[in-house]
Amino acid sequence: MFKAALCQVRGSRLGHIENYKEDCMQSVRRMVTEAADNEADIVCLPEMWNCPYSNRAFEDFKEPEQGETWSFMSRLAAENNIYLIGGSVPEADGDKIYNTCFVFNPIGRQIAKHRKVHLFDIDIEGGQRFCESDTLSAGDTVTVFDTMFGRIGVIICFDIRFADFVRREAIDEGAQMIFMPASFNMTTGPAHWDMTVRSRALDNQIFFAACAPARDESAAYVSYANSAIAGPWGDFKAHAGTDEEILYADIDFDEIDRVRSMLPIVRSRRPGLY
Amino acid sequence: MFKAALCQVRGSRLGHIENYKEDCMQSVRRMVTEAADNEADIVCLPEMWNCPYSNRAFEDFKEPEQGETWSFMSRLAAENNIYLIGGSVPEADGDKIYNTCFVFNPIGRQIAKHRKVHLFDIDIEGGQRFCESDTLSAGDTVTVFDTMFGRIGVIICFDIRFADFVRREAIDEGAQMIFMPASFNMTTGPAHWDMTVRSRALDNQIFFAACAPARDESAAYVSYANSAIAGPWGDFKAHAGTDEEILYADIDFDEIDRVRSMLPIVRSRRPGLY
Repeated sequence: MFKAALCQVRGSRLGHIENYKEDCMQSVRRMVTEAADNEADIVCLPEMWNCPYSNRAFEDFKEPEQGETWSFMSRLAAENNIYLIGGSVPEADGDKIYNTCFVFNPIGRQIAKHRKVHLFDIDIEGGQRFCESDTLSAGDTVTVFDTMFGRIGVIICFDIRFADFVRREAIDEGAQMIFMPASFNMTTGPAHWDMTVRSRALDNQIFFAACAPARDESAAYVSYANSAIAGPWGDFKAHAGTDEEILYADIDFDEIDRVRSMLPIVRSRRPGLY
Repeated sequence: MFKAALCQVRGSRLGHIENYKEDCMQSVRRMVTEAADNEADIVCLPEMWNCPYSNRAFEDFKEPEQGETWSFMSRLAAENNIYLIGGSVPEADGDKIYNTCFVFNPIGRQIAKHRKVHLFDIDIEGGQRFCESDTLSAGDTVTVFDTMFGRIGVIICFDIRFADFVRREAIDEGAQMIFMPASFNMTTGPAHWDMTVRSRALDNQIFFAACAPARDESAAYVSYANSAIAGPWGDFKAHAGTDEEILYADIDFDEIDRVRSMLPIVRSRRPGLY
């Protein structure tokens, strides 16, 4: 048993890069500290929480591993004695930029790092247009790590669209829970968010936590918000609204065995046929 | 463009095997003829439509390929000049029994045959218990076939639980629409039916049609019903209630290209990683 907390933090409204980033860090520090005070064991942040969600901003805000934001997160994990799944930030590596999630253990050591594998290129008639691949490079690893509570996987946002990729972490690599920093938009969010979060949990009979930024109608990219945690039966354990909030759920991995025993999806797989 | 029709037929209430089967055939004949009169091009029946849904009945009602029920379906397709996706029936082959869907073209020739690959063994605390594998053997083929409208896949009921299997037909084999004879129960139906039907359509950006028997509270196995047709955006094109009805939808496979162009899930796949 442990407590998971998703920080549905709002992006800054400040105009300058340094102010923007500092403002976001203050919000994140406040929420993570509150979550730890409420006895959260694993805390997750949303996608691209330290910068505006735009290709221009990814260029302007990029930092290398062990840069300012990385060090901030490492300290935050250690000070609060929690596992911190650091949402994602634009990571500079040589001349490339990645959409990267750094994960820290309760003594502030990095124990995993996921670079978004499936970049989000969308062009909806009368809706959203956004092409991450204009700026970002794609990662190519399946990311799981062990904690004192069990095995955890990480994916980032558009990665959720690929059932095969989630199955790689949950079934092939044995992740009992997957955390997903994400930021669906106002077209795909209402259409697909709840259904896809629940389906990934149900199909793999695991826990699945999706952490999005709070909604800010004044932002260039408006997040659907609605952070949520689903269980192995495909039910929501907790579901946020659209404002800033910390979403909590008590997670019992024994539920995975109970559900898999009653409805043996995982046991009935026939991998030789897929 | 073509018209699909799902016959949400009710099982018979007659007690004797011959009467039961004849009664089901009469209902199916009436509904398929009506669907053809309404210009349906492809008509689908539900799972195990010619027998009660029980292991005992699978033994009692089993027939070989080209048996009475097979011949009935072949004639029905030819007489009505339609593709008939014959739901499923207990198929005898040597000393084995399969849960089998026979598919006929508009001149009554069998063009495909799917044997349920994933048998349904469930044991819910305080809910449903049913183990198909007590009686049935499992198929081991991925089933797609070509029609004058495009490429179609078939799966049966519990097969839908396996995203990898549906992906095999939709992505690897190129099925533009999958028909699923099915019969979810009153535990898994309310919990999972709508979400899973929509997710399989959305994840693969194809059409997905799920045809169930009408609900009969007096039956030993109560079907959730709610036959439905979802499109490549994950939206329902048509959705039945619980009584006997024919569910229709006009299907335009061009919508697949439009959706895949706007939201490039299929194009963004990274098969080397799965």
